[in-house]
Amino acid sequence: MSAIIYKQLGEVELVRRPKPQIQAPGDAIVKVLHASICGTDLHILQGHVPTCQPGRILGHEGVGIIESLGAGVTSLSVGDKVLIACISSCGVCTPCRGGLSAHCSTGGWILGHTIDGTQAEYVRVPHAACSLFPLSADVSVRAALPLSDSVPTAYDVGLLPGNIKPGAKVAIVGAGPVALALVMLAKLYTPKCIVVIGRGGSRLETAKTLGADYAFSVLDGDEAAVQSALEVTNGGGFDLVSECVGSPESFDICQRLLAIGGTLTNAGVHGCQVKFDLHDLWSKNINIESKLVSHDHTSWLIDLVQSNLLDPQLLVSHVFPLTSAQNAYTAFKAGSKEGVLKVAIEM
Amino acid sequence: MSAIIYKQLGEVELVRRPKPQIQAPGDAIVKVLHASICGTDLHILQGHVPTCQPGRILGHEGVGIIESLGAGVTSLSVGDKVLIACISSCGVCTPCRGGLSAHCSTGGWILGHTIDGTQAEYVRVPHAACSLFPLSADVSVRAALPLSDSVPTAYDVGLLPGNIKPGAKVAIVGAGPVALALVMLAKLYTPKCIVVIGRGGSRLETAKTLGADYAFSVLDGDEAAVQSALEVTNGGGFDLVSECVGSPESFDICQRLLAIGGTLTNAGVHGCQVKFDLHDLWSKNINIESKLVSHDHTSWLIDLVQSNLLDPQLLVSHVFPLTSAQNAYTAFKAGSKEGVLKVAIEM
Amino acid sequence: MSAIIYKQLGEVELVRRPKPQIQAPGDAIVKVLHASICGTDLHILQGHVPTCQPGRILGHEGVGIIESLGAGVTSLSVGDKVLIACISSCGVCTPCRGGLSAHCSTGGWILGHTIDGTQAEYVRVPHAACSLFPLSADVSVRAALPLSDSVPTAYDVGLLPGNIKPGAKVAIVGAGPVALALVMLAKLYTPKCIVVIGRGGSRLETAKTLGADYAFSVLDGDEAAVQSALEVTNGGGFDLVSECVGSPESFDICQRLLAIGGTLTNAGVHGCQVKFDLHDLWSKNINIESKLVSHDHTSWLIDLVQSNLLDPQLLVSHVFPLTSAQNAYTAFKAGSKEGVLKVAIEM
Amino acid sequence: MSAIIYKQLGEVELVRRPKPQIQAPGDAIVKVLHASICGTDLHILQGHVPTCQPGRILGHEGVGIIESLGAGVTSLSVGDKVLIACISSCGVCTPCRGGLSAHCSTGGWILGHTIDGTQAEYVRVPHAACSLFPLSADVSVRAALPLSDSVPTAYDVGLLPGNIKPGAKVAIVGAGPVALALVMLAKLYTPKCIVVIGRGGSRLETAKTLGADYAFSVLDGDEAAVQSALEVTNGGGFDLVSECVGSPESFDICQRLLAIGGTLTNAGVHGCQVKFDLHDLWSKNINIESKLVSHDHTSWLIDLVQSNLLDPQLLVSHVFPLTSAQNAYTAFKAGSKEGVLKVAIEM
Repeated sequence: MSAIIYKQLGEVELVRRPKPQIQAPGDAIVKVLHASICGTDLHILQGHVPTCQPGRILGHEGVGIIESLGAGVTSLSVGDKVLIACISSCGVCTPCRGGLSAHCSTGGWILGHTIDGTQAEYVRVPHAACSLFPLSADVSVRAALPLSDSVPTAYDVGLLPGNIKPGAKVAIVGAGPVALALVMLAKLYTPKCIVVIGRGGSRLETAKTLGADYAFSVLDGDEAAVQSALEVTNGGGFDLVSECVGSPESFDICQRLLAIGGTLTNAGVHGCQVKFDLHDLWSKNINIESKLVSHDHTSWLIDLVQSNLLDPQLLVSHVFPLTSAQNAYTAFKAGSKEGVLKVAIEM
Repeated sequence: MSAIIYKQLGEVELVRRPKPQIQAPGDAIVKVLHASICGTDLHILQGHVPTCQPGRILGHEGVGIIESLGAGVTSLSVGDKVLIACISSCGVCTPCRGGLSAHCSTGGWILGHTIDGTQAEYVRVPHAACSLFPLSADVSVRAALPLSDSVPTAYDVGLLPGNIKPGAKVAIVGAGPVALALVMLAKLYTPKCIVVIGRGGSRLETAKTLGADYAFSVLDGDEAAVQSALEVTNGGGFDLVSECVGSPESFDICQRLLAIGGTLTNAGVHGCQVKFDLHDLWSKNINIESKLVSHDHTSWLIDLVQSNLLDPQLLVSHVFPLTSAQNAYTAFKAGSKEGVLKVAIEM
Repeated sequence: MSAIIYKQLGEVELVRRPKPQIQAPGDAIVKVLHASICGTDLHILQGHVPTCQPGRILGHEGVGIIESLGAGVTSLSVGDKVLIACISSCGVCTPCRGGLSAHCSTGGWILGHTIDGTQAEYVRVPHAACSLFPLSADVSVRAALPLSDSVPTAYDVGLLPGNIKPGAKVAIVGAGPVALALVMLAKLYTPKCIVVIGRGGSRLETAKTLGADYAFSVLDGDEAAVQSALEVTNGGGFDLVSECVGSPESFDICQRLLAIGGTLTNAGVHGCQVKFDLHDLWSKNINIESKLVSHDHTSWLIDLVQSNLLDPQLLVSHVFPLTSAQNAYTAFKAGSKEGVLKVAIEM
Repeated sequence: MSAIIYKQLGEVELVRRPKPQIQAPGDAIVKVLHASICGTDLHILQGHVPTCQPGRILGHEGVGIIESLGAGVTSLSVGDKVLIACISSCGVCTPCRGGLSAHCSTGGWILGHTIDGTQAEYVRVPHAACSLFPLSADVSVRAALPLSDSVPTAYDVGLLPGNIKPGAKVAIVGAGPVALALVMLAKLYTPKCIVVIGRGGSRLETAKTLGADYAFSVLDGDEAAVQSALEVTNGGGFDLVSECVGSPESFDICQRLLAIGGTLTNAGVHGCQVKFDLHDLWSKNINIESKLVSHDHTSWLIDLVQSNLLDPQLLVSHVFPLTSAQNAYTAFKAGSKEGVLKVAIEM
């Protein structure tokens, strides 16, 4: 089969590989229909994920058809159209039973990381019963694709800990797929305002299209963006501020946007320490939460899509055939400048 | 009347002052029986609280008898024995109605800060209906005294956000009155272990007496203390870690003690930025909460004392007469070295 | 002044009464702009509320202007436009501090019940600081009026305990003002469906206008209504079922609509025992909550109105001048048949 | 192998049956060490569970050693000592993913009900990965046995929805194993008082031994028991009232014991409608929850036992060899009169 591998620093390659085989009774082999590229794939290419070695088939996001199943999987059937969760989990180890399925002792983020991933014609998915989600016929592949990672990250990590209710003031720092998914999800709770702070350009326009009331660019300076955002709240700050970038600068913007009593949710992947203004914030009844996405809410998110209450397809901006893998990565790397959101690869 | 004032940097003085008068219909004049000294009073003396100017009568903790009441206070009576909450709140402004009473728009921490405080024969307490708590005859003055500040801080700030249940693993960094109150409170939930990390000496012994299973001293090095504490959990870390000191070093110890899925509560008053290891913690499903103590739970805490389920009197290590104000402060400053906990001043 | 009193069984009368006076330092005298009639007023007229005696000025709902204030009220000003909460509470008694302000030991539902009410030119409101809510100039009297009782009842009693999230299935039994307010509020959470079951006619049409997806009439039989509603959920039942009538029949419909894991909220005022199918429901992970409305969420509801996220004015169907008090009551009694919702009385 | 079957109305029989075989890849065959008898087994014998037909091997509680595993079970090993949960669940169907594992679409209460159960030398357990819980060597068989059903029922159904905190007032109606397990569990939260209402005799004595502060017998009349219990709270009622019997009389006692703001949890299995005093309770901010036990908390309960914070062995009053099956049932039927609690059968 054809597959996209992490060849070496900064480089992917489309190669031929043997089709994966069932290795454990909980496995499924999924014929991939669409896979998508995640910011984390770029982190791998930059060498920031040493646990992922060259030669690895990339990708932890995808939708496909079950080709074969291990002897232990009875809740799924060959031929099922399924969403592949970015996190694999067994459902019964101590972390899984303790509500920490992203920290499954034999799973977690393994696809396209410590085992081969979804950017190939076929992928082996361990713990398939827990980690694959059947899709009804009326959910399109492209609408489902962002439910592998971006949308559950936006919900589980970015939104849920904020416990927002109608009338909430929401600030989102970042304008990539997770941030935009968060705009769509926050909108379901009828907030008073959603403010997005990003690097400008078409992604900020998209944020507005998806429901953001205001969008400010850091290209005019972080300070100016913070001030503009705070003005929307008459200086009072935001009930929920979500960090969807993963940098010290972005964290700093977030902590300055918090209202007294506010929650900062961190959905960004961070590579270094950040400075936390605890001398300013200690007394302000604030809450910071950060976690790895789970698929605890994925069934529910699929249900929202089926019910036409959520349309993640809007997050997929480009689709490339597998043969154009290099172009897909080039497009995704261009990112915010070119208005690229999720880039899908069609097998 | 006699009163203890903040004279100048590093110095208190016992002076004569006019007895306070009712100024607003919500005021009470309370004849103080006992006041106590808080770490925050020392911060004032060190010049770290610029909003508190020399000449101010110190103190935001105390128990007394209502001497007179403003025209608007109908829920209390002259002669009532009352606990004085360290936070004054009106109960009806936007923050108060929004569950943020410590941020009351006409209250908050004002006693012994922006208005004269409790370390005097009499004190004027604004918003008395909300901020004074009647004590039944069977609650002793010394048992009630720590309920002004230390015990509600330990509960509301240190314990509650951790949402612990029986079997929880609890680490407390610090061994002052708040930390020790937290030991007592955590014990009510039947944790698996309580570990206290402090500066050593008698306070750590007291921690054990009050229910801590282990006590480690940072005098042997922060690293050693962290490792010893983690060993108690077989390396897994703690469900609840509470920062009860207020320093970057202490925050750093705390973040290293967190279990996956754990909560760090900050009860320390911080004077500078801290370094937050978000690159290490972003994926570990952690939660950091920091807030100003409220008196939302004070009635309940008083009820626990009346029911003999909690005995805060154990936190009062020394009592001085008002005439020995200097000695009281000297003793309290000696702090951890001399096994001093709360220092009470008897009027 | 003119006032509407409960004259005798089934009868109201417009009479002259002395203007009320401040009696306690927490009182306010409010010049009423609009009052409205509640189903509870009809219960009084039917003799079902023996604690309310003939001669009582009726009404616990209203909007007005503060005419004078007791000496203890400093958070409000003469001339303020205010919403009068149907529940009066002191904010500091044991129930109030314990989150049960509707059971305030010197308040609760007293207006138009044990003391004179709002259906008069002036009303004395005890515990004014807690029980009156300032309205900004841009909130119209008619938009605010349902916030005295119907809207907070719908939220606090009917909606909140259900803890609904986007995609929830909601059934509302009843089509009066509380039920319709609940439609409006549930809509803010983007449910999958809202089904209203009522007595038919224009109220069911209004329910659809306000956002209900389906409306079924019990005039075709309770059984038929239940089956029609269940069909909407493919037989699975509803996550939230709210009883907004107050009868055994209505409770019975509700318990039959519950999904496994569902919540039944009771907003109806009940005059007799109901039969509870615990033999059928014991194993179905169900939850029944019933309570007296509080004004814990009234500030937030006012904020939603100011933010144009909620428009309770749609619930006011008729306005009569005070001189037409009899007509107002006659219209309100006609209720569901005539498409009457809230009936306002303009002073 | 030997097995206890439901022979006919009122009668069990010890018979020979073929040893069970793996039927599905998720199955385990467990060599039973101890099984125990549940009140539900008696319901079957009384003909109240028509879905359980004569010939069925009884029992849904037990501890054993894994003899063999289906091809799909990789998280357990042959030879593991395991607790058998009374509820089997797949972990991935819609109810399981929705937090309703007791309503698993291919599981739920099936052991000793719709498939053969644990009162035999061997039992086949479907969905073994989710439904068997490894026990460490230091947990004795008898200490673990009540964790199959009584203890998780007490926690998940009886205690958890009450959300009690230190100082809570707890009433438990019933004095069987679930009720007594609830006494032990409630004690972990340092309540102000635990009152047990039962049929008198040694079980009430045991309740006191396990931590109940008061025990009242309905043999003196329900009214007297209710009044005695209410007196403990000075008439105020209880924060948590748990129905652990399953009868209209018992439900009635419970509803009369509720404090304003209290929660009634129903752990009893009910065979008929109950009368619910909604006319009295509608305004009292009450909450009624009823559900089928899950094993969501079983790992945690095992951990409490391993940590010596809970000792369920105290709930096992009698042990019979399998050859004395009839005697075991006779003893269990004698129940409250003879001080019998859990009756274990040793294979």
